[in-house]
Amino acid sequence: MRLLEERIRRDGIVVDGDVLKVDSFINHQMDVGLFQEMARQWHEDFADAPVNKILTIEASGIGIAAIVAAEFGVPAVFAKKSQSINLTGEVLTAKVTSFTHRRTYDVIVSRRFLGPADHVLIVDDFLANGCAIDGLVEICRQAGATVEGVGIAVEKGFQPGGARLRGEGLRVDSLAIVEAMDPATGTIAFREG
Amino acid sequence: MRLLEERIRRDGIVVDGDVLKVDSFINHQMDVGLFQEMARQWHEDFADAPVNKILTIEASGIGIAAIVAAEFGVPAVFAKKSQSINLTGEVLTAKVTSFTHRRTYDVIVSRRFLGPADHVLIVDDFLANGCAIDGLVEICRQAGATVEGVGIAVEKGFQPGGARLRGEGLRVDSLAIVEAMDPATGTIAFREG
Repeated sequence: MRLLEERIRRDGIVVDGDVLKVDSFINHQMDVGLFQEMARQWHEDFADAPVNKILTIEASGIGIAAIVAAEFGVPAVFAKKSQSINLTGEVLTAKVTSFTHRRTYDVIVSRRFLGPADHVLIVDDFLANGCAIDGLVEICRQAGATVEGVGIAVEKGFQPGGARLRGEGLRVDSLAIVEAMDPATGTIAFREG
Repeated sequence: MRLLEERIRRDGIVVDGDVLKVDSFINHQMDVGLFQEMARQWHEDFADAPVNKILTIEASGIGIAAIVAAEFGVPAVFAKKSQSINLTGEVLTAKVTSFTHRRTYDVIVSRRFLGPADHVLIVDDFLANGCAIDGLVEICRQAGATVEGVGIAVEKGFQPGGARLRGEGLRVDSLAIVEAMDPATGTIAFREG
């Protein structure tokens, strides 16, 4: 998606060969006008899929999921990262290892909000190793829900998650795929669409 | 707001005299159509205020903030609850004690996203003791930003936060104010508008 690539080139910060900061427009300050354009793109790309629920994981996926849900006209569910005292009843859980935060945590979704009738579009801000997506897919599997696809804002194409998930048959729709980043010059190379 | 009160009566679950679960439409599964109606109400209520930024705190405020930011046509910023390794540079911080999760944490916003030119509408899903709002107001004060007001989905009117914040001169616009809840019958009494 040209608009997102241009925005990443302009406002993204290459911290090192691995870390790309997009906190001025995606995951700390949120440019929801951009999110709306992203949502329209996914809506077009998944026009053939009977999506009736958006699923993401807290925290930085939530804003994107809310705008995507508004575009699709369906509810969004965000998986929680740890058991809250307010989250009673039967839950679906999966373990996820975060490389960014260097810890393993439980991903939790109440069974009341995901079931066999659900056709799910999973969305998230980043895809690197794909562990968070694995967790969400596993939760959908436990719920008997159908995963229609995965919408990612920024995929790190030089990390293995995207290729692995596509290899497993998942429809992964990344709006910008970073192939390489140079922290010395700040240049970012995107995969051609 | 009649629509929200009716939804709380229908789908809210009174767990005890203190805890109201709204996780089927606000803070786990999100009915973003409802969020859009809430956003329109706040936009109308704050039509006289030069709001140019929405501020909330992760995680459950983020979906509401994104939809409100879309309605106002301004960016949203979500405060983070703990130092992330990706959050470098100068930050604004305040300490917040969560009664729900029984812990004290740091609320963090990058200085790059909040400054003297900002006229802020703070939004959140719940207002009880008001500690999270205190933290966000403190961060705005440190940034030199103007707090135009606070938009709350559900205020627990029987807890002290709302009265205290209004007493401090803040414009608090709660769309539903619960005066009392009866866990035995599940009945919920709202404050009259």
